[in-house]
Amino acid sequence: MPMPFARRLDQVETSAIRELFKLLGKPGIISFAGGFPDSAMFDVDGIRQAAEAALRDEPGAALQYGATEGYQPLREALAQFMGGKGVQDMAPQQLIVTTGSQQALDLIGKTLIDPGDKVIVEGPTFLATIQCFRLYGADLVSAPIDADGVQVDRLEQLIVEHRPKLVYLIPTFGNPSGATLSLERRRRVLELAVQHQTVIVEDDPYGDLYFGDAPPPSLLALSHEVPGSRDWLVHCGSLSKVLAPGLRVGWMVAPPEMLARATMCKQFSDAHTSTFAQATAAQYLRAGRMPATLARVRAVYAERAQTMGEALRAELGDAIDFVPPQGGLFVWARLTGARGQVADGNVFAQRAIDQGVAFVPGAPFYCANPDHATLRLSFATAGVEQIREGVARLGQALAG
Amino acid sequence: MPMPFARRLDQVETSAIRELFKLLGKPGIISFAGGFPDSAMFDVDGIRQAAEAALRDEPGAALQYGATEGYQPLREALAQFMGGKGVQDMAPQQLIVTTGSQQALDLIGKTLIDPGDKVIVEGPTFLATIQCFRLYGADLVSAPIDADGVQVDRLEQLIVEHRPKLVYLIPTFGNPSGATLSLERRRRVLELAVQHQTVIVEDDPYGDLYFGDAPPPSLLALSHEVPGSRDWLVHCGSLSKVLAPGLRVGWMVAPPEMLARATMCKQFSDAHTSTFAQATAAQYLRAGRMPATLARVRAVYAERAQTMGEALRAELGDAIDFVPPQGGLFVWARLTGARGQVADGNVFAQRAIDQGVAFVPGAPFYCANPDHATLRLSFATAGVEQIREGVARLGQALAG
Repeated sequence: MPMPFARRLDQVETSAIRELFKLLGKPGIISFAGGFPDSAMFDVDGIRQAAEAALRDEPGAALQYGATEGYQPLREALAQFMGGKGVQDMAPQQLIVTTGSQQALDLIGKTLIDPGDKVIVEGPTFLATIQCFRLYGADLVSAPIDADGVQVDRLEQLIVEHRPKLVYLIPTFGNPSGATLSLERRRRVLELAVQHQTVIVEDDPYGDLYFGDAPPPSLLALSHEVPGSRDWLVHCGSLSKVLAPGLRVGWMVAPPEMLARATMCKQFSDAHTSTFAQATAAQYLRAGRMPATLARVRAVYAERAQTMGEALRAELGDAIDFVPPQGGLFVWARLTGARGQVADGNVFAQRAIDQGVAFVPGAPFYCANPDHATLRLSFATAGVEQIREGVARLGQALAG
Repeated sequence: MPMPFARRLDQVETSAIRELFKLLGKPGIISFAGGFPDSAMFDVDGIRQAAEAALRDEPGAALQYGATEGYQPLREALAQFMGGKGVQDMAPQQLIVTTGSQQALDLIGKTLIDPGDKVIVEGPTFLATIQCFRLYGADLVSAPIDADGVQVDRLEQLIVEHRPKLVYLIPTFGNPSGATLSLERRRRVLELAVQHQTVIVEDDPYGDLYFGDAPPPSLLALSHEVPGSRDWLVHCGSLSKVLAPGLRVGWMVAPPEMLARATMCKQFSDAHTSTFAQATAAQYLRAGRMPATLARVRAVYAERAQTMGEALRAELGDAIDFVPPQGGLFVWARLTGARGQVADGNVFAQRAIDQGVAFVPGAPFYCANPDHATLRLSFATAGVEQIREGVARLGQALAG
C-alpha cells in the first residue's frame, strides 16, 4: 500500500522549470535561467563582521530560541529601514520576521486561504506563489498586466466578479515581468482595497534594485494617502536579493489582527527564524553598510541589464520584443515570430540549450492562459562578456 | 468588515502556556517553565569558529540560495552522525534538513494530513505538535503512556479502531513525560507499523541527552530488525537541544516517496533552511566537537536533574509523585492530593507564581482527557542552588 498522502498535494505539479534546471549542469552552458543574485557581489566581509558581533555582543540570544515574531533588534532595524523608504509610522511591532519572504507567502496562505477560495495574481507572476497558494487550495485567477503593471480596470472587474480572499501583486520590477506599477495605478489599487474590502499583498523583494531613478513608493509607503487602505494591506520584504539569500531573512507587515494570526501559524511552522541569522542581519543593518552595498549592486546589475538589452536588440532584432528593465533581475521578452522565426518559448529554450545557453520559458509563470511566446532572461549572475556571448548564442539558436 | 481568516485557524486556541509565560517577567522569579536548553552551555567558541570557516571556505554557497533538500555537506555530516547512533545504511539522500524539527512536524502535516484525518499522539505529548497537526485539520486521538512509554496494546487497539494517518511518538525522554519507550515496546511499535501499514513518526530531540546508560536505540536504528518497518517510519532529529536552537537546524528521515513530497512542500514553505546556519552546523560537526559538547551537556543536566529530584522528594514528600528522569530536560510529576494538599496543577502553578517560582501545569499537553494533577518542571536552565531554592518555594506554595 502506498503512503496515504494528503489531497492538497494533487493541486501542485512538479515544476517544468525544475526539469529545465537539471540541464544546467551541461559543461560550458551560460545561464540566464536563475532567479537569484550574483554571489560574487555578496558583502562577505560585512556579513562576517556582523556574525562576529552577534556572537560577541549577545551570544545567548543569538543562539537560543527566540520570539516567534522575530528578534527585537532586527525588527527595530527593519522598521527603520522601511521608514527610510518612505513608510510612515512604521513601528517594529507592525512587522514579523519570516524565514525568507517565501515563508511570508506560506503564512499568508495558511492564515487566509480556505480550499476553493479565489485568489487574484498577476499573469504572469512568481511561480512559487502559484504553487504555495494552490497547496492551500486556492483557485487562482489571472489579472492581465502591461508595462505599467496590473491593469487596474480589469483588476476591479475581477475583484467584483470573484470576491477573492486576496490579490497578490509584485508592483515593482515584477518577477518575471520586470514591470513596475505606475504611481497612478498604485493609488487606484489602494482605493480598490478599501472600496471592495479586499486584502492586497504587496511582494517587494526587488524594489531596492533600481538602475536610474527610484521607482514609485511602495503601496505600503503610499497607504497613508488612502485612508483605510493600510487595514487591507500586507507587505512582504526580503534581504535575499539585496544582501544574501542564505540568511533567509524576510519580513511581513500586516494589520495587527492578521499579524497575530500569522505569528501563531509561524509558531507551528518553524517556531522562529534562525536567531543567529537574525542577529547577524541586525548587526549588519546597524553597522550602516546597506547603502553602500545597495549602490554597488545597483551599478553592477544596471550595467548587465543594459548590456543584455543592447545585445538582444543587436542579435535578435525584430524576432523579440521587450521593455528594457529599469530594475530587478530580469528581462521579460516575447518572441514575435517575425519572418517565420520561432515563436514558442519552450521550443526556443530547447534550441538555446543545444547552443549552450539557458533561460526560462514564460508559460509556467501564468496560472491560466499562458502566453507561450514569452521568456524570462536573468542578467544578474553573468558578467557582461558572458552576457554578450550568451545572447550571441541565442541569436544562433534563433537562426538554427 | 473583519479580515476573512481561514477556517483552519478555528482549530487552534491561544496556548494556556503562552498566557503563563507572560508572568515570567516578574522580578526574581525562578523558572522551571521553559522547554529550552541552558544558553550558558552553548559552545559559542566552537560555533564562532564554524561560522568563520563556513564564510572562509565557501562564502558563495553559505550565503546563496541552496537546495531545498539541504546543504549537501550538512546532509553528509548528519547521515554520519545518525550512523554513529546505530542507524544502518544511512545515506545523505535519506534525510532532508528542516528549519528546526518544528518544520519537520509542519511538513509531515502538510504532506499527510487531510481535514478530518485521525492522528494518534501520546497523552501527554508536545504541545506544538498538537497545534501544528490541528492546523491541518487532524482529529487527534490520545494513546495512554506509562513510565515505559506508550502502552502498545492500547496503541494497537486505537490503530485498529481509528485507522490513523499517522502515529506520533517521542520515544526517548518524552516531552513532557520524560518517559522512555522500552526496547521490547519499540520492536512492537515497528511491528505494528508494518502489520497495520501505519506511518509512525519518531520525534527524537532529546535522545542524546542521557545521564547514565544510553537509552535503547531509536526506532530508526532498530528498524533493520523489523523487515518493512523503515517504509513506514519518519524520524525527526534536531541540533536545538544539543548544540543551539538559534541555528534552527533539524532534519527528517523518511521513505523516498514521502521525502520527495515533503521537499516539494518545503520548497513553498521557506525554499530552504538558512544556508549560513547549515554551513555553520556542517563545519561544527566536521570539526569533531560534538562528542565533547554532548559529554559536557549531559553531565550538567544530570546533576541538575538529580538535584531537582532530591529536592522535590525532600520538600514535597508524598504530595508529589514522579519517576526520576534518566535524560532529557524535564521532570514530569503528579500531585497526589495526599493529606488534602493541592491536587490541581493549575491551582498549584498560580500559587507557585505567588511564591516566585514558575512551572507549566500538565493539562494542556493532553489532546483529550487531561490529567489535571500533572505538571512539568524543567531542570535545564537553573543552576543547582536555584533549583534548591525554587523547589523550596514550591514547598511553600504547597503549604500556603
